[in-house]
Amino acid sequence: MKILVHKHQMEYDGSQLASLWALRHFNLQGDSIVTFRGPCRVELDALVDIRDRLDHAPIYSPDMLHFIVEHFDLDLEKTVYRQRLLMAIIKDLVGEVAAISLRRLGDDLYFGNRKLSVSIATLTPVSTMIHAGINVTTAGVPVPAVGLAELGLDEDSIWSFAQRVSCGYAEEIRSSAQARCKVRGVP
Amino acid sequence: MKILVHKHQMEYDGSQLASLWALRHFNLQGDSIVTFRGPCRVELDALVDIRDRLDHAPIYSPDMLHFIVEHFDLDLEKTVYRQRLLMAIIKDLVGEVAAISLRRLGDDLYFGNRKLSVSIATLTPVSTMIHAGINVTTAGVPVPAVGLAELGLDEDSIWSFAQRVSCGYAEEIRSSAQARCKVRGVP
Amino acid sequence: MKILVHKHQMEYDGSQLASLWALRHFNLQGDSIVTFRGPCRVELDALVDIRDRLDHAPIYSPDMLHFIVEHFDLDLEKTVYRQRLLMAIIKDLVGEVAAISLRRLGDDLYFGNRKLSVSIATLTPVSTMIHAGINVTTAGVPVPAVGLAELGLDEDSIWSFAQRVSCGYAEEIRSSAQARCKVRGVP
Amino acid sequence: MKILVHKHQMEYDGSQLASLWALRHFNLQGDSIVTFRGPCRVELDALVDIRDRLDHAPIYSPDMLHFIVEHFDLDLEKTVYRQRLLMAIIKDLVGEVAAISLRRLGDDLYFGNRKLSVSIATLTPVSTMIHAGINVTTAGVPVPAVGLAELGLDEDSIWSFAQRVSCGYAEEIRSSAQARCKVRGVP
Amino acid sequence: MKILVHKHQMEYDGSQLASLWALRHFNLQGDSIVTFRGPCRVELDALVDIRDRLDHAPIYSPDMLHFIVEHFDLDLEKTVYRQRLLMAIIKDLVGEVAAISLRRLGDDLYFGNRKLSVSIATLTPVSTMIHAGINVTTAGVPVPAVGLAELGLDEDSIWSFAQRVSCGYAEEIRSSAQARCKVRGVP
Amino acid sequence: MKILVHKHQMEYDGSQLASLWALRHFNLQGDSIVTFRGPCRVELDALVDIRDRLDHAPIYSPDMLHFIVEHFDLDLEKTVYRQRLLMAIIKDLVGEVAAISLRRLGDDLYFGNRKLSVSIATLTPVSTMIHAGINVTTAGVPVPAVGLAELGLDEDSIWSFAQRVSCGYAEEIRSSAQARCKVRGVP
Repeated sequence: MKILVHKHQMEYDGSQLASLWALRHFNLQGDSIVTFRGPCRVELDALVDIRDRLDHAPIYSPDMLHFIVEHFDLDLEKTVYRQRLLMAIIKDLVGEVAAISLRRLGDDLYFGNRKLSVSIATLTPVSTMIHAGINVTTAGVPVPAVGLAELGLDEDSIWSFAQRVSCGYAEEIRSSAQARCKVRGVP
Repeated sequence: MKILVHKHQMEYDGSQLASLWALRHFNLQGDSIVTFRGPCRVELDALVDIRDRLDHAPIYSPDMLHFIVEHFDLDLEKTVYRQRLLMAIIKDLVGEVAAISLRRLGDDLYFGNRKLSVSIATLTPVSTMIHAGINVTTAGVPVPAVGLAELGLDEDSIWSFAQRVSCGYAEEIRSSAQARCKVRGVP
Repeated sequence: MKILVHKHQMEYDGSQLASLWALRHFNLQGDSIVTFRGPCRVELDALVDIRDRLDHAPIYSPDMLHFIVEHFDLDLEKTVYRQRLLMAIIKDLVGEVAAISLRRLGDDLYFGNRKLSVSIATLTPVSTMIHAGINVTTAGVPVPAVGLAELGLDEDSIWSFAQRVSCGYAEEIRSSAQARCKVRGVP
Repeated sequence: MKILVHKHQMEYDGSQLASLWALRHFNLQGDSIVTFRGPCRVELDALVDIRDRLDHAPIYSPDMLHFIVEHFDLDLEKTVYRQRLLMAIIKDLVGEVAAISLRRLGDDLYFGNRKLSVSIATLTPVSTMIHAGINVTTAGVPVPAVGLAELGLDEDSIWSFAQRVSCGYAEEIRSSAQARCKVRGVP
Repeated sequence: MKILVHKHQMEYDGSQLASLWALRHFNLQGDSIVTFRGPCRVELDALVDIRDRLDHAPIYSPDMLHFIVEHFDLDLEKTVYRQRLLMAIIKDLVGEVAAISLRRLGDDLYFGNRKLSVSIATLTPVSTMIHAGINVTTAGVPVPAVGLAELGLDEDSIWSFAQRVSCGYAEEIRSSAQARCKVRGVP
Repeated sequence: MKILVHKHQMEYDGSQLASLWALRHFNLQGDSIVTFRGPCRVELDALVDIRDRLDHAPIYSPDMLHFIVEHFDLDLEKTVYRQRLLMAIIKDLVGEVAAISLRRLGDDLYFGNRKLSVSIATLTPVSTMIHAGINVTTAGVPVPAVGLAELGLDEDSIWSFAQRVSCGYAEEIRSSAQARCKVRGVP
């Protein structure tokens, strides 16, 4: 997997969840995970989660660390599993860096009852994609929320955190593929 | 998924990793997770992990909590992801029950440098299967190891732990399948 | 599978054959079969069957019982098989209720040379879908046609028929999945 | 699909459910349906249906019409659907020839409460296979049973029936594949 | 596979790479390869290859022999392999007809350093497709190029060449499917 | 893909076509292509090609260059395409090195009417595999045959040829996977 930690400010508005986004914008061809930081504002019409749309629950956060993942196969169930592994990695690393313990419920992370993250996985015509957004700050977030800043991560540690998550995810995918190649079949 | 916590002593010798084991022994038809407790002794010839066999590393533990999972599809990469989610669930629940923090490296769990678990995923002619064994005690384990007893889980809490892991895994699989059914495609 | 017999009048115009239609309109998440009743009017541009479009054969029926099925995988050949099983179930139940014998030719049902049904199966970006429409009355249908009313089903029996078809189909899918989980492989 | 109606007497003992059986014995390469006639005697150890084996329910019939189908893909759920379409075709043709009405319950056919058929679908290392056996006579069958002879089919009509079933199945598979190739995607 | 050598002049502008093109225009249902001749002019916005679009490299050729292939499955990796086999077949036949030796680099054909071809493979909502264009003449082609005319093929031999390529490709696909149906599994 | 040119003499007897052979013998984990040289002697019972077995056509060659390929997926049709690309690569490189022109018919290579190669592709319980054997000398080969030695390749050039084929194949697979990751979908 290609990894890019893009240290420029960008808003996430849902348009980044489109096939070949990493190729179009960062010249990354093949499976990739790209990280950037900025506000998150997904209007109702741009929501991919139809449940959220039915609930009239647009997404907003003033400042998030965003991960955009693309895998070039068409098995969404598999990419939902990958998404949850990504959230498990984020959970473990936040826990380690902030010396706290988060809870993971499916693809959501919580600190107590406060939500740290939003995430979705879906299909494009040629691939599957994941978006995961981790609050840095939380002013105006429409649900009880917590952010990395409040958990004690300063500017520098956010980027090193982003780097470690990306590498951890790429290693998870690589080692899973390798694990498939060392076992014999059983009866 | 069918769940069975089988509170009888059984040795795990590798023969349990065979298609329809849960149907043959417990009348469970369909995807399942079965838990039991007992020693773990897998001789070289019974190893599914060919790397371990090449390393002449048979598996032994005097007392383990065993999870046997079967999924009726033939995508081993997908079941490796499921295996890692199972290990992440075990990690989180041990951490919560024992108030400690474990590390997950792929499909292995560690407390410091001591190994808590063994695990493998493979293909049968009709399904994919996972074995995960969690040390309860560790006398005679051939690598630096730690067990649930040492981490403070008594007899009763081991079974309730087993129950929570099984339910957590079944819920992870169920909610992943549901997550696949609420998103529109993107361009 | 989720089942809904929606006893309100709705026109089928082809727009119902769109991903997550059951979720958007009836809050049904996951594989589903939804039944409703109303006219059927699919203009040339809305036809999914390109052969029909090339033949300039728009679809019309004044009153049909409609079944909309969604399965969240991307194997259209498999869903064509499911579609034909649905038509076989409808054939058997009409035969039983009306004490007649229909013929099934692929996904079409006939009483003598008169057509009882229209049906199509296709892909969405995230799922496969089936539409089956069964004539209730046939005034203005552009081909020789027969309807459930003419075959002796009154208002009440049409809804109980709809219920039985839906349950029969859901059971067919459920038991097929189970059948896959009780057999050993052969050499 | 290749079709062969093999008008020689052969016993079905389960060994015919093995990959490339039609190639090895009849030089048929590729998807095929082969029909022959003879007793059916499957001992416990040869049973593919593990539920039947657990129930100690060996299979016996003195005289059956057998269909052996092989499809060279590895999707057993799909072949279970094909199996049920085969049973639906048999149901319809028996009904037509004998002027009676059978019931299909999954992959079983009944006349009243008497069973007409046995059937199984499973995986080989390179393909999926179906066996369907239709009783001709029923002396010694261990469950309430009915046979084609009792339903009025004489020797000649049994072979023409076999031919029509085979052609009907091959046409079902062919037309399903074609149905997949005439539809546009929907949103 | 259906084969059509369409001996009328048509421009390739990218719009031919759309699902069911052969069905819509030539009434060919199912996997197909259609050949025609004409200029090739694909503007930036119509490019399927996003790398070319990023490089601002529109495609132009004054006169090409075009092959449009459609396969009704959704595995793009598999269709990339098919595409390369098509290019290997073209390479061999040009070599034979013109008594020269071409080089194949992935999906590109070269005579020395001059490019003979353009090609792309992609997904539609219901199928995978290939376009391969072989220069006949090369005036105005934006890269060093060679054409079939320059290599000595006259008008007649171009159409017989088109016919041989189409038949060779159809035979490659047919015999590959058959090759899959004659082997036993190995341990 | 892992590449190994193993310059020791080994006989090919069919037993090399077994899952994880490269891992067990050369510690190569993951998709791989291994080359070695030695006689080829596959007895009837060891034949994977059931057509050859039916024809009582065991395989023999006194001296061959062998390629053993393993891909960790279960799509045999796809691996047949890969096999044919491997043969196309071998054809092109022999042609270049020996300044001759071979013919490829499916997975067979010919010089005139003399056969240069044997090849097969099949499934293991966890992967797909290819064997390709290229005659070096041909004394005792049971069909009209030609070998690399006769075509002018000396000892040294055979190993460099083996290296170029292996790298060419690995590059073909790598670039095919990349080609899948640069295209947008079409309507």
